[in-house]
Amino acid sequence: MRLKCVKGAKEIVESSSYLISDPKSYKGNFNKVFNNSNPIFIEIGMGKGKFLIDNALRYPDINFIGIEKYDSVIVRAVQKLEDIKIDNLKLIRMDANEIDEIFDHEIDRIYLNFSDPWPKARHEKRRLSSEYFLDKYDSIFKNEKNIIMKTDNRNLFEFSIKSFTDFGYNIENISLNLYEDDIKDNIPTEYEEKFVEKGQIIYMINVKK
Amino acid sequence: MRLKCVKGAKEIVESSSYLISDPKSYKGNFNKVFNNSNPIFIEIGMGKGKFLIDNALRYPDINFIGIEKYDSVIVRAVQKLEDIKIDNLKLIRMDANEIDEIFDHEIDRIYLNFSDPWPKARHEKRRLSSEYFLDKYDSIFKNEKNIIMKTDNRNLFEFSIKSFTDFGYNIENISLNLYEDDIKDNIPTEYEEKFVEKGQIIYMINVKK
Repeated sequence: MRLKCVKGAKEIVESSSYLISDPKSYKGNFNKVFNNSNPIFIEIGMGKGKFLIDNALRYPDINFIGIEKYDSVIVRAVQKLEDIKIDNLKLIRMDANEIDEIFDHEIDRIYLNFSDPWPKARHEKRRLSSEYFLDKYDSIFKNEKNIIMKTDNRNLFEFSIKSFTDFGYNIENISLNLYEDDIKDNIPTEYEEKFVEKGQIIYMINVKK
Repeated sequence: MRLKCVKGAKEIVESSSYLISDPKSYKGNFNKVFNNSNPIFIEIGMGKGKFLIDNALRYPDINFIGIEKYDSVIVRAVQKLEDIKIDNLKLIRMDANEIDEIFDHEIDRIYLNFSDPWPKARHEKRRLSSEYFLDKYDSIFKNEKNIIMKTDNRNLFEFSIKSFTDFGYNIENISLNLYEDDIKDNIPTEYEEKFVEKGQIIYMINVKK
């Protein structure tokens, strides 16, 4: 995610009713944020929010939480949401590293969309599909663990297939060229739309354990 | 593999010193075919034999066995071998279905190169990476089980990644575009060379259990 300075981003984000400003206080009780017991799906690295907003509108019986580190990014989603009221969508501003300090056995699905590939071997741990992160995810999932990843980065995808299966995940579904398949249910991200326009291959994997 | 009629193919194949004409008699004792205890690698569906012959020449301390069903195909390899003497290469004419009747805990690696994708769901069992075949392979491997697959067929590759990992194999190495990677050790098949010329993506996976 390229970072552009948005004037007053921090203030805009913090004043949004979509932001969960004290997420740690809900640990283990995120259903209270939504006042229901519907499944909770999260997107780590939600970018500008298109994927999450479209999902929340399409699936009102699922609660969505977007996680993003940077004010300058999350502010784009906040601005999009300004005039819309969506009850099943919330945002958390945090580093993905802290994810296991925020959630406790209450998440039903994790979306990883076009995550930073961290191409250097010494940065492997930082990839959101690394063993380091999969270990953290284990403690945030409620029952069945389910991760759905999309990326245009071949090496990240190769790494992720190996990492997921090494960690005991089973492959539910995999596509090595999503846009050649039947994708009527696919909700694209902002990046995805740009990549597809350029003719780049989009990879997708859905794993469970 | 497109089948062209080669006149006298059956006779040419049967008269070749490379052909193991009574493979069942060696079951459990294929090291006697080679008079050594070197590892045995097999290629199921060896086609015209380029991959196998190049491997045998490059790795004299490994024994290679090519398996092919059709005289009209295997004869191409026999003709190539006419004026060469390679001690570590043999051919078996048989249907892959019978593989567990031929070998018994003595194979170290299986190569599956550009296998028939059998695209229809009802033919899934016929794919050489199906559970049906993986089950057979279990009884032919000596110790560690190792399969290396190359294909240009995306759907077969997606199916195979899932099938291998579902069956307990771990991914050692995977490439979603082999010719964009460092492939100095890669030995291409006849088909592979043609596909690469056309700009098609070659997929590769190396699995072990």
